[in-house]
Amino acid sequence: MIATGRLTVTGSREEGRLASPLGLHRVLKPGGVLPQAAWRLDSRPAIWPDEVRIRVDRLNLDAASYRQLRESTGGSAEAMRGAVLQIVADRGKMQNPVTGSGGMLTGVVDEAGPDSPLGLAPGDRVATLVSLSLTPLAITDGLAGWDGQSEQVPCAGHAILFGRSIAAVLPGDLPTGLALAVLDVCGAPALTGRVVADAAARGPIKPVVAILGAGGKSGSLSAVAARRAGAGRVIGVVPGEGAAAVRAAGLADQVVLADARDPVGLAGAVAAAGGPADVTVVCVDVPGCEGGAVLATAPGGTVIFFSMATSFTAAALGAEGVAADVTMLIGNGYVPGHADLALDLIRAEPGVRRLFEARLTES
Amino acid sequence: MIATGRLTVTGSREEGRLASPLGLHRVLKPGGVLPQAAWRLDSRPAIWPDEVRIRVDRLNLDAASYRQLRESTGGSAEAMRGAVLQIVADRGKMQNPVTGSGGMLTGVVDEAGPDSPLGLAPGDRVATLVSLSLTPLAITDGLAGWDGQSEQVPCAGHAILFGRSIAAVLPGDLPTGLALAVLDVCGAPALTGRVVADAAARGPIKPVVAILGAGGKSGSLSAVAARRAGAGRVIGVVPGEGAAAVRAAGLADQVVLADARDPVGLAGAVAAAGGPADVTVVCVDVPGCEGGAVLATAPGGTVIFFSMATSFTAAALGAEGVAADVTMLIGNGYVPGHADLALDLIRAEPGVRRLFEARLTES
Repeated sequence: MIATGRLTVTGSREEGRLASPLGLHRVLKPGGVLPQAAWRLDSRPAIWPDEVRIRVDRLNLDAASYRQLRESTGGSAEAMRGAVLQIVADRGKMQNPVTGSGGMLTGVVDEAGPDSPLGLAPGDRVATLVSLSLTPLAITDGLAGWDGQSEQVPCAGHAILFGRSIAAVLPGDLPTGLALAVLDVCGAPALTGRVVADAAARGPIKPVVAILGAGGKSGSLSAVAARRAGAGRVIGVVPGEGAAAVRAAGLADQVVLADARDPVGLAGAVAAAGGPADVTVVCVDVPGCEGGAVLATAPGGTVIFFSMATSFTAAALGAEGVAADVTMLIGNGYVPGHADLALDLIRAEPGVRRLFEARLTES
Repeated sequence: MIATGRLTVTGSREEGRLASPLGLHRVLKPGGVLPQAAWRLDSRPAIWPDEVRIRVDRLNLDAASYRQLRESTGGSAEAMRGAVLQIVADRGKMQNPVTGSGGMLTGVVDEAGPDSPLGLAPGDRVATLVSLSLTPLAITDGLAGWDGQSEQVPCAGHAILFGRSIAAVLPGDLPTGLALAVLDVCGAPALTGRVVADAAARGPIKPVVAILGAGGKSGSLSAVAARRAGAGRVIGVVPGEGAAAVRAAGLADQVVLADARDPVGLAGAVAAAGGPADVTVVCVDVPGCEGGAVLATAPGGTVIFFSMATSFTAAALGAEGVAADVTMLIGNGYVPGHADLALDLIRAEPGVRRLFEARLTES
């Protein structure tokens, strides 16, 4: 579905504004921008025919936003509650004005419009897979149940999903915390699987895949997705700590220690483990990994950057600077079917599940 | 060729350091980084067996670096000369420490090592296609011929190309200014042509290609590269000014006016012109074009970002926020054969050549 020009017009409400699957009809200020870029959204509970209203029970603030709120308010329960309530009252969404980021939410479907394409029904327990930074939200309980000590915010209120939003029904067979941790990164294994399958289809040699940050959430899921998509060899790169746990998880054919910010060291380590890689997946959330990822990749290969610490210019100029003919992908968090694929991986891969569970226990 | 682990060892010099095609042997400070990231390079004129020494006659400072130098020095000839000489003396390369950027240079091949893979011979007149920010350089004339009023810096001295550097022999049939302007952006038409050819090969419908910023250097060349690679329809998007010249150049099937920073307006304009696009090429050097590029692109399509103003996070989160299944590429400035392809395009496409010549006359 494409925005306007060919807008999917799904109906009208009392004031006659037409609904857009992108949520343009909920943008109050400034006009003409997408909901994510808007300062203020219309969060009223009545829905357009292609919308869904969620009864919210929990917000998961993203880590950058939570840290900024703690530092700017001092972190008391009262100050934290006041800050979040003020933002949502001002903006009609929980988008931290300093970091620009949001998070996700969980809740239960309250009402699904007749034209909603999301396939949700009242009573479904869901997590949103689009950012809070573009989701209309109203809070009705003053956040009375939140002590400000966690980015998990118990919350009563409602949120709106557009025709083109994404939500996943939470599975009954997995603990909610585990499911949320998996859904948070579900775009990475989906895109990695697609790229590795394409490389394998070009054959005749099965592709070598290097995962930088193989011990993390997106890295460990991407490693097993790569293997299932036809990788001939998966090389897991870890910075040192956690190597034993990653080896025990059995998600890579070989686990090597290297600092992804050291281009020569990284390329050498990957080469010694059977590289260079045909596909390199960057899941290390520190700046400065672009050059190493390029150098670790074979000519004609592909680098997928999932880290939000990636610098566009460092990647573009870095590849040019070493005459590297590699395809560099911006990791798109949306791939059709990504949520189901990631949940299926965590069910089928006990080694990866143990890594996730250890992380949940620690925090 | 991949860096270390399987370093292509090409020989040794008096002090016994082995040459690396990446130029690691020329890095003096700090150790272990690539030449672009280094503070100081060894710019001595004696070459390793896989290197080439250039007798420099002109530096072309990149626009961001030149502007910073003017603003910080006041812009007098003496101050500008002093600033550039100081940087090159301190660093062994012309990398502006504030902007991090460099530029390119022209000169004549003085000596080519026996193991150089670049195919250059003494007397060849060349332009470097890797940044000055990683090129060992020494200046011997005090920049006496430069008045500081142009980013084109007449200069005597020498520069070093590594095994994995890139340089193009300047063609005898094109004015030097025109050839340099084309070589400056030659990665864009090469990568656009490759992506469009891949899309066309998947058939059966020939791909629709939208070029954002079709009147600029990289945009106009990418437009004609797309057509030659099998585009079924090329939609040129321009911001308003210059539309008549772009139409007259005949490089697109349709030229439409739109602000690439207005997602809904852009997507509507592209849709009305025969879109959405299967391939969208972003050549507009202003921030904020990520959302519009994504919305203008069909599901399953590809966006190529060439603009250095692209934000990695805006692209990644923007696509996820509208559930857009699009492939997003970081425009790699290096594609094998890119220089020859771009020079051939400017020879064969008089409309595009007129756009370039008008730009050169203006400046």
